[in-house]
Amino acid sequence: MKRIVVYPGTFDPVTFGHLDVIERSLKLFDKVVVAVTTKSSKKPLFSLKQRVVLLKQCTAQFNRVEVKSFSGLLVDFTKKQKAEAIIRGLRELSNFEVEFQQAIVNRKLAPSFETVFIATSPKYFHLNSTMVKEIASMHGRVDCFVPKPVLLALNKKFK
Amino acid sequence: MKRIVVYPGTFDPVTFGHLDVIERSLKLFDKVVVAVTTKSSKKPLFSLKQRVVLLKQCTAQFNRVEVKSFSGLLVDFTKKQKAEAIIRGLRELSNFEVEFQQAIVNRKLAPSFETVFIATSPKYFHLNSTMVKEIASMHGRVDCFVPKPVLLALNKKFK
Amino acid sequence: MKRIVVYPGTFDPVTFGHLDVIERSLKLFDKVVVAVTTKSSKKPLFSLKQRVVLLKQCTAQFNRVEVKSFSGLLVDFTKKQKAEAIIRGLRELSNFEVEFQQAIVNRKLAPSFETVFIATSPKYFHLNSTMVKEIASMHGRVDCFVPKPVLLALNKKFK
Amino acid sequence: MKRIVVYPGTFDPVTFGHLDVIERSLKLFDKVVVAVTTKSSKKPLFSLKQRVVLLKQCTAQFNRVEVKSFSGLLVDFTKKQKAEAIIRGLRELSNFEVEFQQAIVNRKLAPSFETVFIATSPKYFHLNSTMVKEIASMHGRVDCFVPKPVLLALNKKFK
Amino acid sequence: MKRIVVYPGTFDPVTFGHLDVIERSLKLFDKVVVAVTTKSSKKPLFSLKQRVVLLKQCTAQFNRVEVKSFSGLLVDFTKKQKAEAIIRGLRELSNFEVEFQQAIVNRKLAPSFETVFIATSPKYFHLNSTMVKEIASMHGRVDCFVPKPVLLALNKKFK
Amino acid sequence: MKRIVVYPGTFDPVTFGHLDVIERSLKLFDKVVVAVTTKSSKKPLFSLKQRVVLLKQCTAQFNRVEVKSFSGLLVDFTKKQKAEAIIRGLRELSNFEVEFQQAIVNRKLAPSFETVFIATSPKYFHLNSTMVKEIASMHGRVDCFVPKPVLLALNKKFK
Repeated sequence: MKRIVVYPGTFDPVTFGHLDVIERSLKLFDKVVVAVTTKSSKKPLFSLKQRVVLLKQCTAQFNRVEVKSFSGLLVDFTKKQKAEAIIRGLRELSNFEVEFQQAIVNRKLAPSFETVFIATSPKYFHLNSTMVKEIASMHGRVDCFVPKPVLLALNKKFK
Repeated sequence: MKRIVVYPGTFDPVTFGHLDVIERSLKLFDKVVVAVTTKSSKKPLFSLKQRVVLLKQCTAQFNRVEVKSFSGLLVDFTKKQKAEAIIRGLRELSNFEVEFQQAIVNRKLAPSFETVFIATSPKYFHLNSTMVKEIASMHGRVDCFVPKPVLLALNKKFK
Repeated sequence: MKRIVVYPGTFDPVTFGHLDVIERSLKLFDKVVVAVTTKSSKKPLFSLKQRVVLLKQCTAQFNRVEVKSFSGLLVDFTKKQKAEAIIRGLRELSNFEVEFQQAIVNRKLAPSFETVFIATSPKYFHLNSTMVKEIASMHGRVDCFVPKPVLLALNKKFK
Repeated sequence: MKRIVVYPGTFDPVTFGHLDVIERSLKLFDKVVVAVTTKSSKKPLFSLKQRVVLLKQCTAQFNRVEVKSFSGLLVDFTKKQKAEAIIRGLRELSNFEVEFQQAIVNRKLAPSFETVFIATSPKYFHLNSTMVKEIASMHGRVDCFVPKPVLLALNKKFK
Repeated sequence: MKRIVVYPGTFDPVTFGHLDVIERSLKLFDKVVVAVTTKSSKKPLFSLKQRVVLLKQCTAQFNRVEVKSFSGLLVDFTKKQKAEAIIRGLRELSNFEVEFQQAIVNRKLAPSFETVFIATSPKYFHLNSTMVKEIASMHGRVDCFVPKPVLLALNKKFK
Repeated sequence: MKRIVVYPGTFDPVTFGHLDVIERSLKLFDKVVVAVTTKSSKKPLFSLKQRVVLLKQCTAQFNRVEVKSFSGLLVDFTKKQKAEAIIRGLRELSNFEVEFQQAIVNRKLAPSFETVFIATSPKYFHLNSTMVKEIASMHGRVDCFVPKPVLLALNKKFK
């Protein structure tokens, strides 16, 4: 039996923290579907298409990873992928509450899926996409936060 | 490939909250090894042997669950079980910090295992073994917290 | 002596979680004034008038509940209602900090009122109006989150 | 209709923080029953009898306050007092989790009672009985933390 | 050796809480550079110039305080000031997570600076600029939250 | 003017996390007095004398660090050292509440001292003495948690 997990997010842009979660997920599941959401509470810096392309470039070395975009309910997308679970990375306390609440609601909407959480590596605790964009916009160095393709894309945006 | 997960704890005694985690784990893994620890910060109410027996009675209906006791480091036990992950249930914020720290330390001791967390059902958020024992010791009703075999064992202890 | 409590909020729209708080308040006070605020940090989905009407429909069975809208300072409104307290529901940790800070400020502005908190039922912990609107906007099922009149109003908005 | 509330605790010893909660409770309820628990996770400094006497001395000015000791389940004691609610003071985040969990369990044991929380005055946030005892044991000044009768009792213990 | 600390913020407007942090900083450092940021997630009520002027008026009595505005990365500004540290006030738990994450990121960008935190006085825990503006906009009293020059400026804005 | 800071703790035993705080403190203050407390909520593994000796060995390279033991109130000890501040390391959220409360109480006992907090390096977030002792007692590897002299002392205890 093949076990599939969905890893949803905005990925605006993908960081080393996200890649850390993807790698750990591959140890637990047979396939990881990275699901880039079309909706977002704030206007994204990168278009949906750009975010998908960057993710594909940064996960090219993993042959059990697929990158897709989705709209509508996450649980509907998950069902269509024939996945058994949704995975989310936790960075100490900072995002726990929101993640947990979302997991409980998703279970109510679709009791057959589980949301599983894994601890991000401590060296990525401080890392989120918003901060990366803010630092890059002021021409600070972000090469320790994001992989090469994202670095180039950020430099292009903010030069 | 068969995926095995270890679910460690004191289980003094097992509650509906623990059984909820075991059932959810079975959806994600091929085998769940419930690992009853011999060490404990406070003196347990039930002996190690009693705790194992109660767990076996309460999980008899699941043929992919094994109950074992262990001493020494959890990561050593996990390796011996040929497991890929350790699973822990989260009850909103109350136990998150401790669980998270333990996961980071275990990863440091044995980088090849992941700790995965799943959200306990909201109806079990309030539930922990300490509270169950306290209520039972004052002859309050605990039948909504623990399964039948545990109920009988508690009544016997506190009659 | 008749004790009156004010239950303030945006109620955009009212959910089963809000109704749970109203019912519990009725056990502690002689009258509950549900106070719908005109100000809001984000543009509401339902107009003030619609929110008040929905609340009236959903609380019609309680004859000690009044629904009113208010602008200006909550403490001024509370004084005008001859109320003794403000009541707020707590959903585990998620909204505690903000609620607590507001209570301390309100006490500073009007030391004669108390803010009292009550625990929402665990089955409503995950529930908030924002999530309900998001799910409804993607045509997910929300009948387990909101009462009938709200369900009809949401369907009309998002069909 | 007369509304009665139970305010439970160890009160080892009573502090200005506890008295703050009692005074605020009197605004919301017709009678406050201060309930001193006989059980305690650690050995108390003052005997049950001493704790009750100190509480009586410190609340002598309020004629709607009663001080009693209780053993067994809090909800059983509450029923016997014909009370409608249990009240607890909150000091920012520090004790919220434990208080909340206890409230949910008590509601499960006795659905007819509510636990209500009120915010302690900010000037008492830092204050708890354990700290007071520790400082007093090293002959630090605690007159800004506890009322006169408690001060004398502490001095007697630690001289 | 002269020790300089930077105290960054939006200060829209400066409150008694901010002044409390400045006074405490003066005990630990030889000079405090108050750094008013030009960027802000929401549109400020007061212009950058107004915010700087109000801060200068409110700190005129301290001859070791300088008020400056800055744009770009905080760590670059800190370096230019020949400062050794960045200071931030903590109000119990409410702002800890965000502050901590920012400190870790700033250390990554510039390992030679430390971020130090000090506890704001409990009487200012509840206090933040957003709340002050909200209350003032509804003509509530804010004289216990902000110094005289700010009070006048707020009255002028909202009359 | 020479600035002195006191860094108090149990240090049972000293870890890389503690040494990280000491090194950072040296950037901000002219002298760091490491203060080993004689009181402890649980029985320490190492005697007071051993803990002081281990700290001296591990800080021998810093000529502005002094190691002392103290009993009684921390604020009294701090005064005797002619120190201006107490410093404490923060590991994300896990120990914030307790540290903060202690700081507020110490300020009440001695308003002239400040408690300053600094963020421990993320790689030491997971690290505390209790965990180190637990792992060492089960013969797990702790060489990434503690310096050489402590490693030898632990091996001797648990061989």
